[in-house]
Amino acid sequence: MKVPELGIKIGRYEHGRRNSIADLGVKVGHRTLVEGDDVRTGVTVLLPPVKNPYRERLFASTFVMNGFSKPIGFVQVEELGYIETPIALTNTLSVYTVANAVVRHMIDLNPDLKSVSPVVMECNDSYLNDIRRMAVREEHYFEAVKSASLDFEEGAVGAGTGMSAFEFKGGIGSSSRVVEIGGEEYTVGALVLANFGKREDLTIAGVPVGELLKDYPGRGTGGKGSISMVIATDAPLTARQLRRLAKRAVVGLARTGGYAYHGSGDVVLAFSTAQTVPLGKEPELISFLPDNALSSLFRATAEATEEAIINALLQAKTVKGNGHVRYALPVDKVVEILEKYGRIGKA
Amino acid sequence: MKVPELGIKIGRYEHGRRNSIADLGVKVGHRTLVEGDDVRTGVTVLLPPVKNPYRERLFASTFVMNGFSKPIGFVQVEELGYIETPIALTNTLSVYTVANAVVRHMIDLNPDLKSVSPVVMECNDSYLNDIRRMAVREEHYFEAVKSASLDFEEGAVGAGTGMSAFEFKGGIGSSSRVVEIGGEEYTVGALVLANFGKREDLTIAGVPVGELLKDYPGRGTGGKGSISMVIATDAPLTARQLRRLAKRAVVGLARTGGYAYHGSGDVVLAFSTAQTVPLGKEPELISFLPDNALSSLFRATAEATEEAIINALLQAKTVKGNGHVRYALPVDKVVEILEKYGRIGKA
Amino acid sequence: MKVPELGIKIGRYEHGRRNSIADLGVKVGHRTLVEGDDVRTGVTVLLPPVKNPYRERLFASTFVMNGFSKPIGFVQVEELGYIETPIALTNTLSVYTVANAVVRHMIDLNPDLKSVSPVVMECNDSYLNDIRRMAVREEHYFEAVKSASLDFEEGAVGAGTGMSAFEFKGGIGSSSRVVEIGGEEYTVGALVLANFGKREDLTIAGVPVGELLKDYPGRGTGGKGSISMVIATDAPLTARQLRRLAKRAVVGLARTGGYAYHGSGDVVLAFSTAQTVPLGKEPELISFLPDNALSSLFRATAEATEEAIINALLQAKTVKGNGHVRYALPVDKVVEILEKYGRIGKA
Amino acid sequence: MKVPELGIKIGRYEHGRRNSIADLGVKVGHRTLVEGDDVRTGVTVLLPPVKNPYRERLFASTFVMNGFSKPIGFVQVEELGYIETPIALTNTLSVYTVANAVVRHMIDLNPDLKSVSPVVMECNDSYLNDIRRMAVREEHYFEAVKSASLDFEEGAVGAGTGMSAFEFKGGIGSSSRVVEIGGEEYTVGALVLANFGKREDLTIAGVPVGELLKDYPGRGTGGKGSISMVIATDAPLTARQLRRLAKRAVVGLARTGGYAYHGSGDVVLAFSTAQTVPLGKEPELISFLPDNALSSLFRATAEATEEAIINALLQAKTVKGNGHVRYALPVDKVVEILEKYGRIGKA
Repeated sequence: MKVPELGIKIGRYEHGRRNSIADLGVKVGHRTLVEGDDVRTGVTVLLPPVKNPYRERLFASTFVMNGFSKPIGFVQVEELGYIETPIALTNTLSVYTVANAVVRHMIDLNPDLKSVSPVVMECNDSYLNDIRRMAVREEHYFEAVKSASLDFEEGAVGAGTGMSAFEFKGGIGSSSRVVEIGGEEYTVGALVLANFGKREDLTIAGVPVGELLKDYPGRGTGGKGSISMVIATDAPLTARQLRRLAKRAVVGLARTGGYAYHGSGDVVLAFSTAQTVPLGKEPELISFLPDNALSSLFRATAEATEEAIINALLQAKTVKGNGHVRYALPVDKVVEILEKYGRIGKA
Repeated sequence: MKVPELGIKIGRYEHGRRNSIADLGVKVGHRTLVEGDDVRTGVTVLLPPVKNPYRERLFASTFVMNGFSKPIGFVQVEELGYIETPIALTNTLSVYTVANAVVRHMIDLNPDLKSVSPVVMECNDSYLNDIRRMAVREEHYFEAVKSASLDFEEGAVGAGTGMSAFEFKGGIGSSSRVVEIGGEEYTVGALVLANFGKREDLTIAGVPVGELLKDYPGRGTGGKGSISMVIATDAPLTARQLRRLAKRAVVGLARTGGYAYHGSGDVVLAFSTAQTVPLGKEPELISFLPDNALSSLFRATAEATEEAIINALLQAKTVKGNGHVRYALPVDKVVEILEKYGRIGKA
Repeated sequence: MKVPELGIKIGRYEHGRRNSIADLGVKVGHRTLVEGDDVRTGVTVLLPPVKNPYRERLFASTFVMNGFSKPIGFVQVEELGYIETPIALTNTLSVYTVANAVVRHMIDLNPDLKSVSPVVMECNDSYLNDIRRMAVREEHYFEAVKSASLDFEEGAVGAGTGMSAFEFKGGIGSSSRVVEIGGEEYTVGALVLANFGKREDLTIAGVPVGELLKDYPGRGTGGKGSISMVIATDAPLTARQLRRLAKRAVVGLARTGGYAYHGSGDVVLAFSTAQTVPLGKEPELISFLPDNALSSLFRATAEATEEAIINALLQAKTVKGNGHVRYALPVDKVVEILEKYGRIGKA
Repeated sequence: MKVPELGIKIGRYEHGRRNSIADLGVKVGHRTLVEGDDVRTGVTVLLPPVKNPYRERLFASTFVMNGFSKPIGFVQVEELGYIETPIALTNTLSVYTVANAVVRHMIDLNPDLKSVSPVVMECNDSYLNDIRRMAVREEHYFEAVKSASLDFEEGAVGAGTGMSAFEFKGGIGSSSRVVEIGGEEYTVGALVLANFGKREDLTIAGVPVGELLKDYPGRGTGGKGSISMVIATDAPLTARQLRRLAKRAVVGLARTGGYAYHGSGDVVLAFSTAQTVPLGKEPELISFLPDNALSSLFRATAEATEEAIINALLQAKTVKGNGHVRYALPVDKVVEILEKYGRIGKA
C-alpha cells in the first residue's frame, strides 16, 4: 500500500505511472539478508537508464543536510557534476564492501577503466541488525543488480531490511511526480532509505500521527539513524541546478517530521536522465532548462520525497532481529487518525 | 495575536517569557516608511545583548537554502565565525544604504575602526512598495536603532511594512523555545522577515489552511519573494555548530508551506549570545556544548522558526500600496479551518 | 611597464594582444580620488562586453580563499551562476556606496527592474587613505563607467589608488593568456586589485625579490590587506566549470608570495563572455567545453593572475597619504636581482 | 636526502627535530606491495598520538582544491569537525578495501562501536601499477599499522610505491615547521602522497628545475594523477580554523608547480593534536587560539607542504612496473640547476 491507497494525496502534483523512481527508467534491485537472529540487512541498487553508466555519465549533484553520514563519492560528484556508476544503498559499515563491488562491476564492463568513483549511501540498521558482523559481501551487490527491475518492492527489503523510521519499521520507499513546464512533461522520482525520526514526530499529510501513536508498542532509540535520498528527473538540468533540486528533498523530509537530529545523517543525491556526458566524446551543446522554470520541479521533489518516506513506512512489515522488534506502522490506526483530523472520510 | 492565542501549539517545547528573540536579550527596532501611495517599506534592526558589537563579537554562522538573495556580510561570517555589528533587515534594493548606515554607526562607536563587516538581509517588497524609488535613507537605520526594545511590534512594521507571505500580508514575526540540556536551560529565538509563499501552500500546524483560503481575495505573484531568518541562542556553540543550527530553520520553513521556490531567496543567520570574542583580547578557552547535545536545540530552532513565520502572518495588518493590496490573514476563518481539522475546539 | 618588458616571461602561454582583461572585450574605467593629504582611494569598474548586463547575463562563479572580505553579490552568483551587472572595485568601507550606484545604474537602464544583484569587491587602503571618511560617492562610480575603455591604466589608479602590495605601492594589474583547445583559441584574462603581502614574501618568476629588498625603505603593516581577483574567459563554461577556474587564480597568487594570511581577504570572481543568458528568453541549449579540456584554461588562469599581480606592482607609482608613503617597486633593483638569479641577461 | 641537505631552505621557518609529521607525535607505517612485473602499490597509515582514536577524537577539517578524487570520510569530518580513526593512504581503487580494514580495526578496539567514519585518501598509481588487479588486501592495512613508527621512510614506499610526480618517481614526502605565537612554540607537519604534475612545471625553491629537465628521460602522462595532503598541528584550533589551515596547503602545492589540472584530485585533511574530544565525555571548555594569531601557522602549513612534496621527489628511487619506468629525480642535475640559478654555491 502506498499513500494514494490511503485515500489521501501528498502535495498537489499527480504521480507518474508507477509512482516510483522507475518512472524515470531507473531499475531498482534488492538483496535482502536475513540470517539467524541477528542479521537483518542488505543492499539496494539503482540502475540509471543507460547501458554503461561509466561511459554514459549523467549530470548529478548532492546536498548534505546533516553530514553525520558516510556517503561514498560525493566529493567527485560535486566537482565534476556527474555520476559514472550505479547508485547503491546499504548499512553504515558495509558501504566500503559495496563500493568495492561497484568498482569490480565497472572494471568488468570497461576494460580500459583505471579510475572510477562509485556512489554508495547508507543508514545504520544496528537496532535490528548486528552491524558489527559486516554481513554484506560483494556478491550481494551483484545479486541486487541482477534482480533490478522497474517493478520493485519497497519497505523492509534490500538496504531497508533492518531500518527503522519514527520507531516503526522503515526502509525503502519511492514515489514520483509529473509536472508540465512550457508544454513539456517532466517527471521527478524519489527513492529513500528511511531510518530516522522519533515516534512522536511522525507527520502524515500534516497530521500528527506519531503524537497519537506514542503509546503504540515498540519504541526505542528514536532520533538516531539517518536518511539517504535519491532524486531522479528527466528534466535537462546542469549540475548546479541539480544541487538546487537536491536541497528541496529536505522540504519533503521536514514535512514528515524529520528534524535532522544530530545523530541523523541526512544526505541527497540528485541526477538527470535527460542527457548523457559520453566518456571521451563530451558534447559541445547541452540542453538547459532556465532556472525560472525550476519552481515546479522543486515542489515535485519535495512532494515525491515526502511521499516516498511515508511509502517506506506503509510498506515495511514488522521485523524482529538483534533482540529488538520494529512493528509495521499500524495502517488501520493511521486511517482512524486521518479521519479524526478530517483528511479522509469526513473531509 | 500570536500562535498560542489561537489555541494551538506549534511543536513540543514551551516558548520563552516573551515568545520572541527578545528572550535572548536581543532588542529589536523598526523604522516604518509609509509615504504617499507608493512607499511601503522600512528598516528593522536587531541589537545583540552587548554594548559594542564591534568589540564584543559573537560566534555566528549562516546557511543559504536558496541564494537568490542579497545578504551582506555572509562571506566574512563564514570565514571568521562571528558577527561584529547589529543585524539589519530591509528591502532588496536598500541593503547597501542600510549597510552604509551600519558602517557609520560602528565608525562612530569605535574611533580606531578601519574595517567592519555589517550583516544586512533583505526581501523584495516591490508588490506593495515602489522599490525603484530606494526610499530608505541611512537615517532610517539610526531611527530604528533608537527605537529598539525588548518589547517590539511584529507584522507590517519596519522591514516588514511592504512584505507579503502566502499572498497575505507578511512581514516581521518572532518566537522562542526553551529546552533543557544536562540540567541547564537554553533558549532559541527566531525572528523572520517573511515575504514568500503561494497562497495554496500555507500550512498552519500541519493544516492546509492556504488550500481552503484559495478563493479569499487578494491573490497575486505567489511564489516570488523571499525569507530572511535570524536565529539566536544562549547555548555556547562554536561557529560550526551554529551552522548546523542555521540549517534547521529550514525545517520550520518547510512546515509552513515553504518550498524555497526559484524566485525566493531563503537565507539564515544564527548566532550565540553565550560568550563574546573580545576584539584584541581573544579568549584562550571557549565554552562548548557537545554536538550530541544539539538535537533539542535543532528542534527548538525548527519550532521557533515555524511559529515565527505564522506569527508574522497573524500580526500583519492589511496594507495597500503601489496599486496593490495585501490582506491580513483572516483569523476567524483560520480558526474555523483549525476546528474543522480537529486542532482546536473539537479536538 | 609590464612583465614582458622586464625581459622575463611568467608561465608558458603567450599573452593576448593587449595583455589585459580587455582581450576579452571587457572595458575598464577608473575614478581616482586624491584629495588633500588623506584621501587616496577610488573606484574601478569592469564592463563586460554586452550592452545591458542585466538583460544579457553571463555565466559566472566565485571562490573564496580567505573570507576576511566584504564582497557584494557572491551568494547570488553561486546560486544562479551568472552576473547581471558590471563588476566594481573600491575600498572596504565604500562597497555599499558603490553597490548603490550599480543598482541605480541598472535601474536607469532597465525600466522594469525590481531586483538586481550588484557585484562589488574591495581591499582595505587605510594605510594611505583615511578610510573612515568614506570619501567615495555614488557619482564616482558613474564617472568610472564613463571613462571605461579597452585601453586602461594600471597601478595606483581607481580602486588601486591607495592600495599596497608586499609593502610597495600596489593597486590594479591585469594580464591575459591565449590557449588552444581542439583547434579553437580561447583567452583568459585576469584583473586584480592587489593589496596584500609581506615585503619579504614577494616572488617574481620564482625569484625571491622581496627577500633581497627587505632593507629597501617604506616597510609597514605587511601581511594585512587583501586581494580581489576577476577572471574572464571566452571559453564556453558553465558556472560549475567557472568555479573550477576561479580556484586556479589562487595558484597564481601563491606563486607571487601570497599566503592568504589571516588578515587578507582573498576572493575571486570568474565569468565567461562566450554566451549570454538573456533575461526572459533563457536558452534551451548552451555551449559546453568538456571538463577534460580545462587544464590549459586552469594554467592560463594561474599565469594571468600571477602576472597581473606583478603588473600591478610594476605600474604603480609612489604614493604618499594619510601620513604614510608607499614606494613604487624599484624596477632597476628588480632587474639586478633577476640577473643575479639567472633569469635575464646572463641566463 | 631531504631539502635541507640540498643546501637550500624552503620558506622561512625552521623545521622540527625530525622534519616530518612525526614531530607531532604522529606515527607513520607502510606496507609496500611489489609483486611480479605489474603490482607496484601499497598502503600508508598515519596514527595520531592517541591510544584509541575512536574514543579520543581530534578536531579536524578538510579542503578540496580539486574534487576529481575519492577521499573517504570527508562529509562527516566537515559536519562534526573531528576524525575518529587513523588516516590511511592507498591507490584509487583500493580506498574501499582499506576503509573496510580501518572499520575492522576500530571494531576490534571498541566492543561497543556500531558506527565509525574512516578517513582514507588516494592517488592513482596506474602508470606503474596494474591498478585493475586491486592487489591491496585488508591485511596490508594492519601490516602498515604494525610497522608504524616516528622514524619512517619516505619516497616509493607504502601508498607511494607506484606514484609519480612531475613525471619523475613520486610518493610519500613529509616535512615540518616550528613557529612561535605569544611565547608558545607550535609545530605544523605535512605528509603528502604526491602523484601529480607535468615535468616542465616542477619548481624547487622558485627555480624552474622541470623546465631544464624536460629532455631527461622518462616522461609520460604528465598532468594526470593527484595529491593527497595531511596537515597536523599541535596548536589548539577549532574545526573552522583547521579548515583555514587546510586551504594553505594549496599555497605550498602551487609553489612546486602544481596547477590542480583537471585530472588531478587535490585534497587536504588537517587535524590538531592539541586536545581530544573524548567519546561520551565531551569537554565543556576547549582551548582556542585567536584567528589573528593564525598567519604564522598558515605560512608554516604552506612551507611544510611545499617541502614535503620536494622531499617525496628527493627520496623516491626509480621504479619499473606495468611496462613503464619512473626515474628518480636526478639530484646531481638538480644541484647543478640550483647553482646556475644562484641558490646554492655561488649565491
